[in-house]
Amino acid sequence: MLGKAKLLKVYLGESERYKHKPLYQYLVYWLKEKGIGGVTVSRGIEGYGQDKVLRTARLLELSSDLPMILEIVDVAEKIDPLIPEICSMVPKGLVFSTDIQVYKHGKEQ
Amino acid sequence: MLGKAKLLKVYLGESERYKHKPLYQYLVYWLKEKGIGGVTVSRGIEGYGQDKVLRTARLLELSSDLPMILEIVDVAEKIDPLIPEICSMVPKGLVFSTDIQVYKHGKEQ
Amino acid sequence: MLGKAKLLKVYLGESERYKHKPLYQYLVYWLKEKGIGGVTVSRGIEGYGQDKVLRTARLLELSSDLPMILEIVDVAEKIDPLIPEICSMVPKGLVFSTDIQVYKHGKEQ
Repeated sequence: MLGKAKLLKVYLGESERYKHKPLYQYLVYWLKEKGIGGVTVSRGIEGYGQDKVLRTARLLELSSDLPMILEIVDVAEKIDPLIPEICSMVPKGLVFSTDIQVYKHGKEQ
Repeated sequence: MLGKAKLLKVYLGESERYKHKPLYQYLVYWLKEKGIGGVTVSRGIEGYGQDKVLRTARLLELSSDLPMILEIVDVAEKIDPLIPEICSMVPKGLVFSTDIQVYKHGKEQ
Repeated sequence: MLGKAKLLKVYLGESERYKHKPLYQYLVYWLKEKGIGGVTVSRGIEGYGQDKVLRTARLLELSSDLPMILEIVDVAEKIDPLIPEICSMVPKGLVFSTDIQVYKHGKEQ
């Protein structure tokens, strides 16, 4: 996937679940099964989305649903067909993409 | 805000303050009041900016000002008018944008 | 570096080393010596790359090699010449760039 590719970012809540699993974990396994090139998950410390409810690590009662950020990288031909299903899996989340230029992907040349 | 939109990223120091509040917290409240679609804050573990001073979680005396990263998402029409004010609020920070394509924003269709 | 610039993102494992140092630390020092405008390092909590091995903070034995994310910002003229060397330093990593618009970089006007 060197050259032109796509970064898809997915933002969701840590407490969201899907098929008896944390949603972000389910998504990572699912993307790996689909053969997507690379996925990285980070945890934010604060944030709000479309519902305008602020989740923050500063308040205990609001800290159980901190933002999780997934960065998904592959060529558009592999990512685009998955976007509708990803969107349906994250009912409250944010999903967007940006174009990237890949210079290195492990041992791939 | 589905379709073409803008991701604005703001990098600042955890210890920076504004109107008696941590600057990053002030910015999140301020952006929410302005009706901006979504904001996520993450904490870095190391970094340097224009002043070339390395802040790192590895050295206690330099770990009180770790980099904070704000990711701000909305259409350009809503973000662009706020950029001058944001830049004036982060005197030592980094502010940049990139174009994105939004596929999902909570219940918004 | 106000105006058109470049964000280079590098993903590597926390346990990777280079010249007797953690690779991510080596890279930050090296980029600072090269005069690159700004670098921020974050730690992910889970992810996989080209080798399709999932590293996760949820499993102790796989949590010693969590993903590290470097965000490197400067004009293309300063970043592009360094990309081949960066790629050779991260044999297992992911390296990609995206175009950005910089509005603020510390005291630089």
